[in-house]
Amino acid sequence: MPKLVQCVPNFSEGRRQAVIDEIVEAVKSVPGVIFLDCQSDRSHNRSVVTFVGEPQAAKKAAFKAAETAAKLINMEEHQGEHPRMGATDVIPFIPIAEVAMEECVDLAKELGQELYEGLGIPVYLYEEAATRPERKNLASVRKGQYEGLKKEIKKEERQPDYGRAELHSTAGITAVGARPPLIAYNINLDTANLEIAKNIAKGIRGSSGGFREVKALGIIIKDRDIAQVTINMCNYKTAPLYRVFEVVKAEAARYGVNIIGSEIVGLTPVDALIDVAEYYLRLENFNKNQVLEKRL
Amino acid sequence: MPKLVQCVPNFSEGRRQAVIDEIVEAVKSVPGVIFLDCQSDRSHNRSVVTFVGEPQAAKKAAFKAAETAAKLINMEEHQGEHPRMGATDVIPFIPIAEVAMEECVDLAKELGQELYEGLGIPVYLYEEAATRPERKNLASVRKGQYEGLKKEIKKEERQPDYGRAELHSTAGITAVGARPPLIAYNINLDTANLEIAKNIAKGIRGSSGGFREVKALGIIIKDRDIAQVTINMCNYKTAPLYRVFEVVKAEAARYGVNIIGSEIVGLTPVDALIDVAEYYLRLENFNKNQVLEKRL
Repeated sequence: MPKLVQCVPNFSEGRRQAVIDEIVEAVKSVPGVIFLDCQSDRSHNRSVVTFVGEPQAAKKAAFKAAETAAKLINMEEHQGEHPRMGATDVIPFIPIAEVAMEECVDLAKELGQELYEGLGIPVYLYEEAATRPERKNLASVRKGQYEGLKKEIKKEERQPDYGRAELHSTAGITAVGARPPLIAYNINLDTANLEIAKNIAKGIRGSSGGFREVKALGIIIKDRDIAQVTINMCNYKTAPLYRVFEVVKAEAARYGVNIIGSEIVGLTPVDALIDVAEYYLRLENFNKNQVLEKRL
Repeated sequence: MPKLVQCVPNFSEGRRQAVIDEIVEAVKSVPGVIFLDCQSDRSHNRSVVTFVGEPQAAKKAAFKAAETAAKLINMEEHQGEHPRMGATDVIPFIPIAEVAMEECVDLAKELGQELYEGLGIPVYLYEEAATRPERKNLASVRKGQYEGLKKEIKKEERQPDYGRAELHSTAGITAVGARPPLIAYNINLDTANLEIAKNIAKGIRGSSGGFREVKALGIIIKDRDIAQVTINMCNYKTAPLYRVFEVVKAEAARYGVNIIGSEIVGLTPVDALIDVAEYYLRLENFNKNQVLEKRL
């Protein structure tokens, strides 16, 4: 299997379809890159593009997309509900196959330098690529957003990792980083009681003392009249799907509530599902190379 | 994902390494074919070669391997413990990705015709490609073996599907067919009582009234001093891994016996494991296209 990196850049344009198309075309123009998805949100005025490729191809596609966004998006005119600080707001690299996290960190650093040298766009490194602990969290990095950062960026602690202490006059500033794949995972409960879902969510999420790299909320799914624990699995290696599922099942049991089912929203790396099979079948000495498709 | 067919031809040579190597080289010489494995057994005097490729490439590689085997193996001189009737004894095509069983059946028929027209080797079609119910089972097709078939082949009911009623003078006759992937799967029990493993095996295997496409035996694993249910999963779609696992668990429970673990021996298609994850996570509306690697 070749080296494979996923890249999920977010752009500050969710309304002008021609602009979105041109960004997607920039990604597709790079040989060896496979475009997977583009989701635009009008009220956020933001688009999320997903593609995969070998590391250098993925980096090139990210650069070309950022170049296109810088040409077509003017942050001076941008309005939208979602926090943002640049035409290309954030670019995470995600290891998928035969690639270590360190390689994605290196890729983020290379791209950061290239964005400044080639386009004059300053860059913050975040998550696994962060150079300071307080920059791991994207929300902290983006604090003040485009408008606030014009001034904030002058402060020593807000200096970009690449570039001078000044935003690009129209493209703003971009966060480039590396992180594990994220799986959007929901567990549906056999109850309409929101409090139960909220309590279970509290038990599993890192911010309340649960699994460090799990985010979770309790919500109601109105059209089915059921409560749901809606989860971001930010690292399926440290907190696998089966473990989260089993804890939710055990927590629900105290209320006499069963799990109706669960949902994976969007894409998942296959390894996250193989881990589930390994656990429940109690597989001994299993090696992922025994999966036929891994040999190809 | 491209169309992918697996092919696992068996050759009547397990001792002369130079001959085995030449057969493997014939497979490797076909562009688009990925050689996965070759296992030779001296007492069986037989080699099992595994490769995958797009349908036409897989067929071509099977032909080239059979051509090489016909040149280098003389069935008049062959001795070995395993039943056999040809230099290339059996060639199954197995659908792996984006290929229906019907396409593998067609592939088997095309290859059958080519083996006779190109090499003068007669062919029986078997399993899913069988033209008569009694030829589904390979053991029935091979009855009498090379020596017995010299005469048997003259009978109306033993006429080959391709070729005249006469064996090739040195290469014999070949069975070509199509079948689902086979998963070699063992379940280890927390007991040294062979009878328990035998009873459980009886409960799950098709020949005793269990799952139609499951074969199973109870055995003792001496070096661990435990009993094992050793299983051939001949169709993971009609009898999935999780269902067999859960039935074995339930049957073992009546003896107060637990499952220690299970083992997949050799290769498995990834879909067999994804099905396990889907079952245990109770996934709703899951589509295998949500697996990132399936998009590539």
